[in-house]
Amino acid sequence: MITVLAGGVGAARFLRGLVLAVDPSLVTAVVNTGDDTELHGLSISPDIDTVTYTVAGAIDPDRGWGLAEESWIAMENLARYAAVRPVGSGAAPDWFNLGDRDLATHFYRTARLTEGATLSEVTDEIARAWGLDVRVVPMTDDRVRTMVDIVDNGVVTTVGFQEYFVKRRHAVPVTGIRFDGAEHARPTFVDTINSSEVVIIAPSNPLVSIGPIRALDGVDRALTANRERVAAISPIVAGSALKGPADRMLTELGFEASVVGVARLYAPVCATLVIDERDADRRTEVEDCGVRCVVTDTIMRTPEVTRALADITLTAAREGAPHGR
Amino acid sequence: MITVLAGGVGAARFLRGLVLAVDPSLVTAVVNTGDDTELHGLSISPDIDTVTYTVAGAIDPDRGWGLAEESWIAMENLARYAAVRPVGSGAAPDWFNLGDRDLATHFYRTARLTEGATLSEVTDEIARAWGLDVRVVPMTDDRVRTMVDIVDNGVVTTVGFQEYFVKRRHAVPVTGIRFDGAEHARPTFVDTINSSEVVIIAPSNPLVSIGPIRALDGVDRALTANRERVAAISPIVAGSALKGPADRMLTELGFEASVVGVARLYAPVCATLVIDERDADRRTEVEDCGVRCVVTDTIMRTPEVTRALADITLTAAREGAPHGR
Repeated sequence: MITVLAGGVGAARFLRGLVLAVDPSLVTAVVNTGDDTELHGLSISPDIDTVTYTVAGAIDPDRGWGLAEESWIAMENLARYAAVRPVGSGAAPDWFNLGDRDLATHFYRTARLTEGATLSEVTDEIARAWGLDVRVVPMTDDRVRTMVDIVDNGVVTTVGFQEYFVKRRHAVPVTGIRFDGAEHARPTFVDTINSSEVVIIAPSNPLVSIGPIRALDGVDRALTANRERVAAISPIVAGSALKGPADRMLTELGFEASVVGVARLYAPVCATLVIDERDADRRTEVEDCGVRCVVTDTIMRTPEVTRALADITLTAAREGAPHGR
Repeated sequence: MITVLAGGVGAARFLRGLVLAVDPSLVTAVVNTGDDTELHGLSISPDIDTVTYTVAGAIDPDRGWGLAEESWIAMENLARYAAVRPVGSGAAPDWFNLGDRDLATHFYRTARLTEGATLSEVTDEIARAWGLDVRVVPMTDDRVRTMVDIVDNGVVTTVGFQEYFVKRRHAVPVTGIRFDGAEHARPTFVDTINSSEVVIIAPSNPLVSIGPIRALDGVDRALTANRERVAAISPIVAGSALKGPADRMLTELGFEASVVGVARLYAPVCATLVIDERDADRRTEVEDCGVRCVVTDTIMRTPEVTRALADITLTAAREGAPHGR
C-alpha cells in the first residue's frame, strides 16, 4: 500500500503519474482540508476536488482546477446580486469561481454532510462517481481551517486561506499561518501510514498544503516512526515554486526557499528527498540535513513524465538507497 | 397602499396585471413561505421567486416557474452522484430542478441568511436586483414548513410540501395538511394590512398557499377587522383549479371544490369574492356565504387581460359594492 500526503494541483499531477506506475487500488491519497471553505451555503473542498478531477482525467488542464469544458452561468448571474449587496456583506462574491458542472460536486457534498455523512464517506462516494480506483481520504473529518496573517496596506490582518489565495491572488506578504481546529481534529490516516509500504509527501506547499496534515495530532509521530519509508518530492525547483506562492511564503516565514529549506522542514519525518536536476549542486547540503537525496527530473509536464518521477520516488523509498546520476 | 396575499404562479400572474392598473410602488405582495425548502444546502423560496421573476417579466412563460432561457448544467451533472448515493440518502435529488441562472438567486439568499440577514431583507434585495417597484415580503422571517399527509400505497405518510408537489407531482391523495412552526412564527405584515386601502387575496390555493399566511398569529384577526376592504379572487373556476391541485385537495380535505367552497373558506376574513363568468350561476350561493360576489373574466391569459381583473377587484374592494354584469 502506498500513501500520498497531498495538497492540490502539484499532488494531483503526481498522483496522475503514480497511478501509471502502480496498481491504483494500492494508492491512498490523504488530502489537505485546511483550504476547505463555505460559500453560498455550499461545502467546498478545493484540494480534494483537484485530486479527484485530476486523477479522473477531468480537470481543466489550463486552469489546473475545476472541470474541463466548464460553463459559468450561475456565477455570471450572481453579478445582479453583487450590485444590491449591502456594504459589509460577503454574499455574491465574484472572486471565487464555481463552474456549473463543478457545482454538482458541491451540491452532493453539502447534501450528504447535511444528512450526517462524514467527509470521508462523501469523498469516497465522489471518487467512485468519477470511477477512481485510488482511495481519496480527507486528512480529517473534523473542521480545520488554514488562516493566514497578511499585510494589508501596512496592517496585519487574518484571513481564511481562500481569501488569501484566490481573492488576494496570493500577492500579499504573509506574516503567519495557523490551522484553526487542528489541535482537536482527529486524523483519518494514522493507521494507514503505519501499514503502508511507502509514504510519499507529494510536491505540494510544505507550509499550507502538507503543514495542515502534519499539524494533526499523531501524524508527525507516525511519520517519524516510519521515517525510513517516507519520501518527499521537493515542490521548490531552483528556488522557485512551479505553481503557487510556496517560494515567497517560505521566505516570508523565515525558511529558505530552496531544496535545502524543504529538506530542513521534512528531515524529522522523512528519510528521502527527491529534488530536481537543476538543484543537483545542492545535494550535499540536502544530505547534511539528514536525508538521502535523489536527483531527477521533477517537472511533471505530462502524466507519462510524472510516471518516471513516481517510479524513482517509489524505488528510493523502498530501497532506502540513494539514487540519481 | 394595496396588499396582496400571494402564493406562487396564480398570484404572480395577478400581480403582473395589477402593476399595470396601479402604481407598483403602492403594492405590497405578502408571499407564502410554507413551500420553502432546503436542497444541496441552499435556501429555496419557490413562491417568492415565482412572484419576483414574474413581476420582473423574467419568468419562463411555459413552465410558470424559474427563469426564461434557462440551462440545467449543474442538475445534469448531479446524475453522476445520484448513481453512487447510498440507499436512504436524499442527496443529488433528480426531482427538483434548479436552473443555472436561477441558482444565483439561491446562492445569494443562502449567503445572506448565513450572514444573519432576515428573509425580509434578502427578499427585498433580490426584488431590487430585478428592478421591481412592488414590495415583496415573505409572510414571516421565521421558519414555517407546510407538511402534507399523503396516502402512499395505502399508508398515510407525512412529507414536506415540495416532496408532495414536485416529487409526487401532486398526484397522490391528501388526508391532511399542517404548517409546522406557524404557531410561533411572527407575521411580517399585520401593520401593512391595517394600513392598506385594499387587501387582495390572490387566486392562489386557499389551503396551501393562503392557508399558511392565515395560520400566522394575528393575521385572520387583522383581516377580519379590515374585512370590508378585503377582496379575494377565486382560484377555482367551474369546479377546477386552472393550475395545481387545489380542486382535488379541497375535495379530499372535505371542502367543496367550487366558488362556493372558496366563499365558505374566505367569508370570515373577506367581504368580496370575485368569481369567473363560468360560475355566474352560483352567485346566489356565494352571496349566501356572506360575501359580496363579483362576476367577471378571471382567466389571466395575458398581463393586459389580468389588468382588467385587477381593476374590477380593486373597484369592488374600494366601493364595497357588488359588481358584475
